[in-house]
Amino acid sequence: MVKTVGIFGGGQLGRMLAQAALPLGVQCTFYEAGSECPSAALGRVIDNTQANALQTFMDSADVFSLEFENTPLADADALTEHQGQHKTLYPPRQALAIAQHRLSEKALFDQLGIPVAPYSAIHSLADLQQAAETQGLPLVVKTATGGYDGKGQVVIREAAQIEQAWAELGKAAPLIAESFVRFSREVSIIAVRGQDGEVRTWPLAENHHNQGILSHSIVPAPHSQDLQPIATDYITRLLNHLNYVGVLTLELFVTEQGLFANEMAPRVHNSGHWSIEGAVCSQFENHMRAVAGLPLGSTALVKPTVMVNIIGQHPNSTDILALEGAHLHLYGKTERAGRKLGHITLMPVDSRQLSQLCQQLATLLPEPLALTADMVIPLADEV
Amino acid sequence: MVKTVGIFGGGQLGRMLAQAALPLGVQCTFYEAGSECPSAALGRVIDNTQANALQTFMDSADVFSLEFENTPLADADALTEHQGQHKTLYPPRQALAIAQHRLSEKALFDQLGIPVAPYSAIHSLADLQQAAETQGLPLVVKTATGGYDGKGQVVIREAAQIEQAWAELGKAAPLIAESFVRFSREVSIIAVRGQDGEVRTWPLAENHHNQGILSHSIVPAPHSQDLQPIATDYITRLLNHLNYVGVLTLELFVTEQGLFANEMAPRVHNSGHWSIEGAVCSQFENHMRAVAGLPLGSTALVKPTVMVNIIGQHPNSTDILALEGAHLHLYGKTERAGRKLGHITLMPVDSRQLSQLCQQLATLLPEPLALTADMVIPLADEV
Repeated sequence: MVKTVGIFGGGQLGRMLAQAALPLGVQCTFYEAGSECPSAALGRVIDNTQANALQTFMDSADVFSLEFENTPLADADALTEHQGQHKTLYPPRQALAIAQHRLSEKALFDQLGIPVAPYSAIHSLADLQQAAETQGLPLVVKTATGGYDGKGQVVIREAAQIEQAWAELGKAAPLIAESFVRFSREVSIIAVRGQDGEVRTWPLAENHHNQGILSHSIVPAPHSQDLQPIATDYITRLLNHLNYVGVLTLELFVTEQGLFANEMAPRVHNSGHWSIEGAVCSQFENHMRAVAGLPLGSTALVKPTVMVNIIGQHPNSTDILALEGAHLHLYGKTERAGRKLGHITLMPVDSRQLSQLCQQLATLLPEPLALTADMVIPLADEV
Repeated sequence: MVKTVGIFGGGQLGRMLAQAALPLGVQCTFYEAGSECPSAALGRVIDNTQANALQTFMDSADVFSLEFENTPLADADALTEHQGQHKTLYPPRQALAIAQHRLSEKALFDQLGIPVAPYSAIHSLADLQQAAETQGLPLVVKTATGGYDGKGQVVIREAAQIEQAWAELGKAAPLIAESFVRFSREVSIIAVRGQDGEVRTWPLAENHHNQGILSHSIVPAPHSQDLQPIATDYITRLLNHLNYVGVLTLELFVTEQGLFANEMAPRVHNSGHWSIEGAVCSQFENHMRAVAGLPLGSTALVKPTVMVNIIGQHPNSTDILALEGAHLHLYGKTERAGRKLGHITLMPVDSRQLSQLCQQLATLLPEPLALTADMVIPLADEV
């Protein structure tokens, strides 16, 4: 029986994983820089800047998982070479490797018949010039690995910018050149796969961003009855192909040509935080159940839910908790522009109340919502 | 703003209080014997067997509460005399004092017009003989303070037993002599009162015991529409009279003459554990909101719920989690006969599924439920 799960990373995802694991009798350890981190309230943090930290971490748990998608592959490899003992990492190393490499990821989507926007692998200036001709402009050029929140990427809008783009990113090649895809909205599907291969999927979330950072998610995504089985099919192909164990997230664009995969995250995801209150079993609990080899819980919806991120500055807790039915989740982090500090879950009784709650919330959050105050969101039970 | 709440006690109630407090940005410290206790996973435990422990505890938090109803009054008093600073205890000392003294408790129920079974205060053998005559037999004789799970109490069925009862308990006088009350079932009402005097009440729970220990609670208590407003009225009288802050529980007998108060507990209660999943805001979160001076959350029902205790021995977690929609809460305790080790929450879709789930659960729990396997419980949405 699994008693302790070692988690690469110690942020808010680790904190919420450990919260969900504790009532199951499963404790967590965390591998993170420093000892002050959101997960520290819930388990031992092994400071990965110290000597022999990886060894200590590997000795600290029965099985391993991650909340940080850029967990070094070398660290994942070390687990399998650990003093002749085989230590297991869920999700598997291969899923982590693919998710960390945009070209591998697109290639896998292609291989499994999951539609993606046109793209090319770029190893040279000539490749980039060729891509501009074949795919047309504009193009988004990104490094295949690394990059975050708009770093490591350049948009080419006219041919004159091609050389400049190569000059800027070429040293980090291979690159990927992606065509813009005209989409009406972004949705994400989150699924969990158990050690026995069982797959369960939560309802689609519709995701809204503000300056590139997730602002809020609406679940179920409005008007998504036809999209749900398609998204479920796509993520199930990925899970089974990768022999995946745990929670996987797939971001998708809704276009006139159907759903296009954007990217996958081999972990629990911000667009799944709603599930703590909104689903029978949350993404956090089901991930820990899967990793610990326990049966999966129901992913059924309890009630339509809106999850709103707290970004940059903390609101007044009293104001937030005075909102009818609001749930507050703070991560124990200090304020910094653009930083995710917590989230709020709203479970309105109908669209009218949702609209009202969102208007109130917009006035209470120091960083405004992307959601405009007069926006009316149709809840799934009304569409 | 309250950042840390010091809690007298460190058992499973403290553990679940701290779990609920963490997302609100509130941490807990615990005052408990030893450092190994269910709450230790979630906060600092101050070992109350060590020198200066009370001083250390008092310095560890902004405001204080309790999960152990037999918290010594002297410890509560120390808070108000703490180095000239006034440290606050919620619930107030008076509530604790009354709940620890059966005669004071009954007197308060009387004073507030809350019906109780006939009782007498017993200071001498003569008092006991008088009570037997006035109230008739049988009588339950209990010490006014202390006593637990049938200890410190004697049943007098015939006059010949009166002297023996006095011989046994008289040295611990004052005693209370209570008449038996013929009741069809026991229910409990749980309510929370905020620092601003707002009161919110959860739906009544119907409680079933096995050998004196709570086996399971059904919420809402079947056929309780008429009882709910009466119970709400009674507990509101108590909360307002005591200028109470936090969660209070009142156990009631359902009799042909209406509801009779049995006893109150000045804390979160086992019969409210269902509220973690079954209510919008749980008893644990609302207690911590009240103690921290935050607005109260909604006590509305999410779904009819059954909470089943795990007693004495752990079941196989895999079996439990395979039950559709079941939630497992383990407390991190070692096995011992009669000890509460955890609980399971079931949220059946209808009475048929409930009956089926209970039958399955009865076969999985090492200590059988009081619930008989063929018992059909009507859920509130059907009555």
